[in-house]
Order: sequence, then C-alpha cells, then structure tokens
Amino acid sequence: MWGIIATWRMALEGVSESASALAAGKAASTSVVDAVAAVEDFPLYKSVGFGGLPTENGDVELDAAFMDGDTLAFGAVGNLVDIANPVRVAHALSRQRYNCLLVGQGAREWALEQGFREKTMLTERAMQHYRKRCRETLDKGLSPYDGHDTVGIIGLDRHGSMSVATSTSGLFMKKRGRLGDSPIMGSGFYCDSEVGAATATGVGEDLMKGCTSYEIVRRMADGMSPQQAADSVVCELEDRLMSRFGRAGDLSVVCMNRRGEFGAATNIKTFSFVVASETQPLTVFRADRLREKTHYVPVDDEWMQAYAARIRAPIEE
Amino acid sequence: MWGIIATWRMALEGVSESASALAAGKAASTSVVDAVAAVEDFPLYKSVGFGGLPTENGDVELDAAFMDGDTLAFGAVGNLVDIANPVRVAHALSRQRYNCLLVGQGAREWALEQGFREKTMLTERAMQHYRKRCRETLDKGLSPYDGHDTVGIIGLDRHGSMSVATSTSGLFMKKRGRLGDSPIMGSGFYCDSEVGAATATGVGEDLMKGCTSYEIVRRMADGMSPQQAADSVVCELEDRLMSRFGRAGDLSVVCMNRRGEFGAATNIKTFSFVVASETQPLTVFRADRLREKTHYVPVDDEWMQAYAARIRAPIEE
Repeated sequence: MWGIIATWRMALEGVSESASALAAGKAASTSVVDAVAAVEDFPLYKSVGFGGLPTENGDVELDAAFMDGDTLAFGAVGNLVDIANPVRVAHALSRQRYNCLLVGQGAREWALEQGFREKTMLTERAMQHYRKRCRETLDKGLSPYDGHDTVGIIGLDRHGSMSVATSTSGLFMKKRGRLGDSPIMGSGFYCDSEVGAATATGVGEDLMKGCTSYEIVRRMADGMSPQQAADSVVCELEDRLMSRFGRAGDLSVVCMNRRGEFGAATNIKTFSFVVASETQPLTVFRADRLREKTHYVPVDDEWMQAYAARIRAPIEE
Repeated sequence: MWGIIATWRMALEGVSESASALAAGKAASTSVVDAVAAVEDFPLYKSVGFGGLPTENGDVELDAAFMDGDTLAFGAVGNLVDIANPVRVAHALSRQRYNCLLVGQGAREWALEQGFREKTMLTERAMQHYRKRCRETLDKGLSPYDGHDTVGIIGLDRHGSMSVATSTSGLFMKKRGRLGDSPIMGSGFYCDSEVGAATATGVGEDLMKGCTSYEIVRRMADGMSPQQAADSVVCELEDRLMSRFGRAGDLSVVCMNRRGEFGAATNIKTFSFVVASETQPLTVFRADRLREKTHYVPVDDEWMQAYAARIRAPIEE
C-alpha cells in the first residue's frame, strides 16, 4: 500500500507529483518534503512559502516541520526569513541529534551555513493584501488576524514508512516571533510508522491546547479508525475550548493510518483536502460537519474553477 | 487541599515561599510564577534565568512557559534575551488570545513594550563555564552539549485551580535559536485543573518525541495514579526511543493530580525534586530508578551541604 493526504486544495499539484513517486516506490520522507516544497514555491498560495502573507511588521516569517515516522526524528523551523524552502531546512534539521527545532535568526544562520538558498519571499501581491488589511483594520476596527491555511502532508510508502511535513506563513498580521502549531511536535504534526500520522491547520493557539495531532495518532494506536480519531479529537477539543476557554477557533485535521486508510475532520465549512492512495484515485474533497461528524464530497469542476479564479482575482486596494 | 511540586533542588527556596502562599489560600497561577521567578533570579543556578549558561555564541537565550489549568490558556517565550524574568513574560502572554508563543526578537520587543525590565542575564561565572567548555570541546573532542536542568513547577490551590510554569536557559552550548521542550505545550508542560499537571526536564529533543507532559496528564485522566503515569510514560518513551531512534537522552518528570497526590520519574541517577502539600511537609527528594520504577528518598544534610558547595565551587578555567 501507498498513500498521501494533505490539507487544503493548494496541495493538489504537489500531491499529484508525489502520489506518482510513491506509486513508483519512492520514500515517504522525500515525497512529503517535495510535495510541500511545491506548495511553498507557488506564488499565489498566500499562506505558505513564497507569496505568504506578512507579519504586522510587513515581514514574511515562515514555519515548517518534518517528522520521520520510523525513527520519530523531527526537524522544525520557526520565523525563518527569506530562505527558499523552509520545509527542506526542517527536513535537514531532522538529521541532527540536538538543535533540531530552530527559530528566527538562528534558523536563518543555520540554513545559510548549510547552503540553503536565499530568496525574497515577500511578493507584491502579498504586500497588496497587507496594505488592504492594514486599512480595513484601521477603518472598520476588524481583528487583523486571519488566514491559517497550513499545508500539512502525510505520506505512506510501499515499504511501510510514514512521514509528515508542514509549512505555513502563520496567522496573517501575527506579531514578530509568533509561532503557531505548525512547527510544534504533537500539535501541528505527529507521525509513527507503526500507527499512522496526523496534521492540523487552523488557529494554532487553540490546536496546541489539545496536542491535536499527537492525540489523533494515539487514538488510532488504540484502535480507532482514522475518521473516528479525527472527528472525536476535533469535537472534544472544540467542546473543551468552549467550556473552559470560552471560545474556539478554526480546527481542521487530516490523518492516515499505516494501512492507507484516511480521515479528516473540521469545525468550519470551507475545509478542503487532497488524498490519493493505491486504492483511492487522486481527489480533492471539501469537508463539512453535520451532527458531530465530518462529511466530505469530491469537489466539482465549478468549485475548482471558482478556486482558480479566486486566487488570481485582482486585489482592490 | 493545596500542593506544589517542582523539578530539581534549585526550586527549594521558591517553592518554600509559594507553599506558604498556597497554604494561605493564594492562587496557583501567581504561586508558580513567583516560585519560578525566584529560581530565575538566583545567580548560582546555571541553567535558569540570571546566571544561565550561554549558547555556542556566548549569548544567554532563555525559554519559559506558563499554563492555566482552568482555561487551558498558555503563554511561552523562546530565546528571550536580557529580560529579567522570562516566566513573567510567559504569564502575561497567556492572557493574549493570539500570539501567545513568541520567540527571539519578537518576544523581546513585546516584553519591552509591556514594560518588562531589561537585565543583563550573562554573569561572569556563566562566562567562566563557557570558556572552560569551549576549551574542553576543542581539547578533548567532547560533545559540547550538557545541562538541561529546567525548573518546572506545578501548583494546586485551595480553590482547586492548577497551574504550571517552566524556565530554562536550555542546552548548554545550544545553537542560536534552538528551542527545547520547556516552552512547548504538551512536551515541557501541561495542566488541566480537572485532572492534574506534569512538567519535564532533560533532553528536549527527546522529550518532545513523546509529548511527555501531555501524555502523563492524559494517563492521570484515564485513572492512573501520578506515580504510575510518570513511571509508565518515562519507561515507555525510553524504550521507544532506544528501539526506534537508537538512543535516549535524560528524561525526568514530576506531576501532581487535583487531589494533591504527586509522582516523579527519571532515567538518571541524579534527579532531585521538591514537594509540599497540605499533607506533605516541604521535602527535597532524590530519585533513582530500579526495575522500571522510580524510587525516591528525602535528601540528608550531607547531600544539601554538598549541593551548596558544588554550586559555589570555583571554576578551574
């Protein structure tokens, strides 16, 4: 068996390439890293990598992580500035015994020492979004925070190895130095080749309160199906946040077990995900929740065209 | 009931003060923050706060966290430079809806904006340790990495509220920007007033692989005693690291449940902890592991004197 699952429609092109690679026997580790790197490189995806939206200071600070489900080794970067592919730096860090989670200036210095390429990650389109948001925040008193579409991709290869990788520009208008769940072990990602893997997207501050990805993998280890694990963890976390913290942000997850079975759960109406496996043709699904269970259907051509138009639409400044 | 438990002998003075405060009905949140701040302020504790050991660059970068077990709110800082009490910054961040985990320059800017006091955290004694270690590393080819004595303190107050706080200078000779488990939710700390809390000290890169603190709290929620939860999590994590990752660093934990019962577990011979509660007089214990179970005995005067001498001993440069 092989399989791959990813958060959001934006992962489609990368997942498509990596699905072919996994079908051909390629390793899960390089497959998920390459798939995430493809999302990072695409300039119109405004929440990941090149073209990602800036902090309140107007800088692009990127977070990424990688975990190897065979060894439990992981690497992660936070607030990385102007390096072409944060996920490749995270992957390289996973081979370090110590110092595998590096942030800020230290992460950048390490990446440059290792020969990773510098690249200006702020695009003119991202700056247009930024200027518009600054004005809206001032004019309308809106919360400046928005956007949390982390790409998280899980791969299972024909040898039974699993890996997961994440990448994000984080909360739009975040403060300098803010980390969400994406580079945080157990919250944004977790992977154990003997069980399965999970990855999350949404409000990092809330996903961390439940160690969301770790808990989903743990429930799969306890015998739950991926769908049961995903739904139960998202529902229970939302209930717990509402009763204890008084509010709950967006919470969405995908997961896959070692047999290539997958699950997805969300508390929002607009969560899409991409999946392919030996038994599941490559499909973009859109998920919605009804009565504490997540339901999903393949998107149609109209949805895909509306998506393509939306990411290219002019920004009215 | 009230109770307080902390990693390492160095917490004694802070715990002593906060035990009196808790006995008098003071809140768990301020009690743990004050206790950790006392450890941060003491110049001879070389792994926390003022006097903490530097990175490989010779800078002191400090990590700290706070979690409120009533609301699950948390705040954390990483790689904070020259602010007097990182744990107080973490506590203040726990009141933010977003951006509650801040690192590096962003953490420092936020702390200064909020009026936290600047303080040069590098001491001459820490520099002596640093110079000595640099020479040893060059001369003897030793691994430069050492020191991971995070202070983690759990408090339970008479109102049934629980909190946890951590603070550390991290791995001695760490790379700039390195985060260990101490500011990471679920790994270095977790707290749920309806269940209990846990906090960890050791090699952060390994403690994160098991979401150690979260897992201990989860097992207490499942009905385990604090001691069973602590021992089983440390033993299983060590076994899993050895079989999957091929090595396991130092792993030590303390925990307390909502009834004030406590537990401690370690895979090293030199782990000490401090505990006090309505039914347990203030005691420093030293822990050791025999046949997959942690045993602990109160330290004697000789041990306390040797400790006092050791932290004051001249450093042979």
